[in-house]
Amino acid sequence: MGTFSDKVIDASRQNNSLLCIGLDPVQERLPNHLKKKGDIVAFNRAIIEATSDLVCAYKPNLAYYEVLGPRGWDILQKTLKAIPRDNGIFVIADGKRGDVAHSAEAYASAIFDTFGFDALTVNPYLGFDALEPFAKRQDKGIFVLCKTSNPGSSDFQDLKIKLGDNTYTHLYEAVARRTVEANINGNYGLVVGATHPGELRGIRDIAPSLPILIPGIGVQGGDLAASVRDGCDEHGELAIISVSRQVLYASSGKDFAEAAMKVAQGLRDAINAIRSKTLRAAPSRQDSSRGEGIRS
Amino acid sequence: MGTFSDKVIDASRQNNSLLCIGLDPVQERLPNHLKKKGDIVAFNRAIIEATSDLVCAYKPNLAYYEVLGPRGWDILQKTLKAIPRDNGIFVIADGKRGDVAHSAEAYASAIFDTFGFDALTVNPYLGFDALEPFAKRQDKGIFVLCKTSNPGSSDFQDLKIKLGDNTYTHLYEAVARRTVEANINGNYGLVVGATHPGELRGIRDIAPSLPILIPGIGVQGGDLAASVRDGCDEHGELAIISVSRQVLYASSGKDFAEAAMKVAQGLRDAINAIRSKTLRAAPSRQDSSRGEGIRS
Repeated sequence: MGTFSDKVIDASRQNNSLLCIGLDPVQERLPNHLKKKGDIVAFNRAIIEATSDLVCAYKPNLAYYEVLGPRGWDILQKTLKAIPRDNGIFVIADGKRGDVAHSAEAYASAIFDTFGFDALTVNPYLGFDALEPFAKRQDKGIFVLCKTSNPGSSDFQDLKIKLGDNTYTHLYEAVARRTVEANINGNYGLVVGATHPGELRGIRDIAPSLPILIPGIGVQGGDLAASVRDGCDEHGELAIISVSRQVLYASSGKDFAEAAMKVAQGLRDAINAIRSKTLRAAPSRQDSSRGEGIRS
Repeated sequence: MGTFSDKVIDASRQNNSLLCIGLDPVQERLPNHLKKKGDIVAFNRAIIEATSDLVCAYKPNLAYYEVLGPRGWDILQKTLKAIPRDNGIFVIADGKRGDVAHSAEAYASAIFDTFGFDALTVNPYLGFDALEPFAKRQDKGIFVLCKTSNPGSSDFQDLKIKLGDNTYTHLYEAVARRTVEANINGNYGLVVGATHPGELRGIRDIAPSLPILIPGIGVQGGDLAASVRDGCDEHGELAIISVSRQVLYASSGKDFAEAAMKVAQGLRDAINAIRSKTLRAAPSRQDSSRGEGIRS
């Protein structure tokens, strides 16, 4: 059985895409004809139908469903059912969860059993015993927050940690190193905001073979070219570039799904162009049974 | 209008209790006569009815509701409606949430508007701009994870941070200090596990006037006497001692609510006895309009 890391590579090859779409619907931003009825399921379904051959993953942020109360979890379940799974696409619960022992077990069961997600974003502050209930699900992906896209990420993530030999490292680097050490099942990944290209490069060096989920492109102002160049592994893979509002709200008219498709296609192609350019001098992955890499 | 901190003091005085009950129901652990139907609402209601004059707060951990899917949020809403609010009791959503900008706004709206909680536990890793959407709700309480009760809390929380003047502090102490600085609305608090009495004392020194939520008593092995002694402020207040399984599962028979009541009463009285003993030499709060402190 392949690891979750293999699943990420397979998904991006099958769809020739590193693009992930964040399914973060906000009722007030739905297209006008869907806004009145608040039909978020219809919105999500149309977005998925228009984009599912352009992405490697979808990433619903749980906040946007939680805010709707009981109805929100129902909408989330219907959304998950609408995602085709025959082309390797995986689905990440962006919940940034983290809790101790029994409560972490309950979250793992919620995310992986009740909802059937393939992966989850988690917060490392509580330590790795708190992540173990997630990580012991060997076929599931655990993306650990490392350096987040917001300006305030410097408050704690950039603090200088004293190491044993009297040298220093940033907290986010310590998180990346500990995640690499904990990755015995090949199912850990990291989350690094596209707004920090310099840090992304350093983190990729620390974690050469971990999937890195990179949000913050588009509205948040992250740099696409730098994110692809510095976020990919040496084979131009294992970066997952996540975009949400730029795709979801490409048009507020009845053509919203078509508009979303065009934006997604443009992003996928732009990402692949950067990959091709960056990879020119890089070695190709030894495992040729996985098929070719980027098709441009 | 009083601050959230005032609300904590009022609640503990009105019920003469620092006890908080964690409403973390697990279907398999319900009393036998409720287990078959999985009637969690009936269970929670009976626990609340039996204990609501013995506590200052209830604290549902959201994981135990999330795992039930759409039904879980419905159970949570019915549970919240069953909590009497005329005696100052406040209700903490133990969700350990944390996300950037728009998503944090959605969580704040979910917890405070959709569900109507009075307070929330949050994770500081993302930094204080990510907590601002919660903290700007001036009447709501924001409990920041500082030193958690699990053994792995040492992984990151105990790391040594280099300060400007070449001295060091632990990460959890840096979190406590920054929380005190951020507390302009009087609505921040801290979460410190009862399993770390030494650290709790240091954190109370850093944050003399913040409410401290202290889970980990009972099944997790935290020290009740040390938690009360080191967790209370100088007036024997502002510590919130949270207990869950020890109360919820005091009996698996039809007498579960009565058994829960007895355990809760015993805990409340034990806590008050420790407060009285510890306070002997301590000054009483200047603000006499708040009424007396501990009634023993």
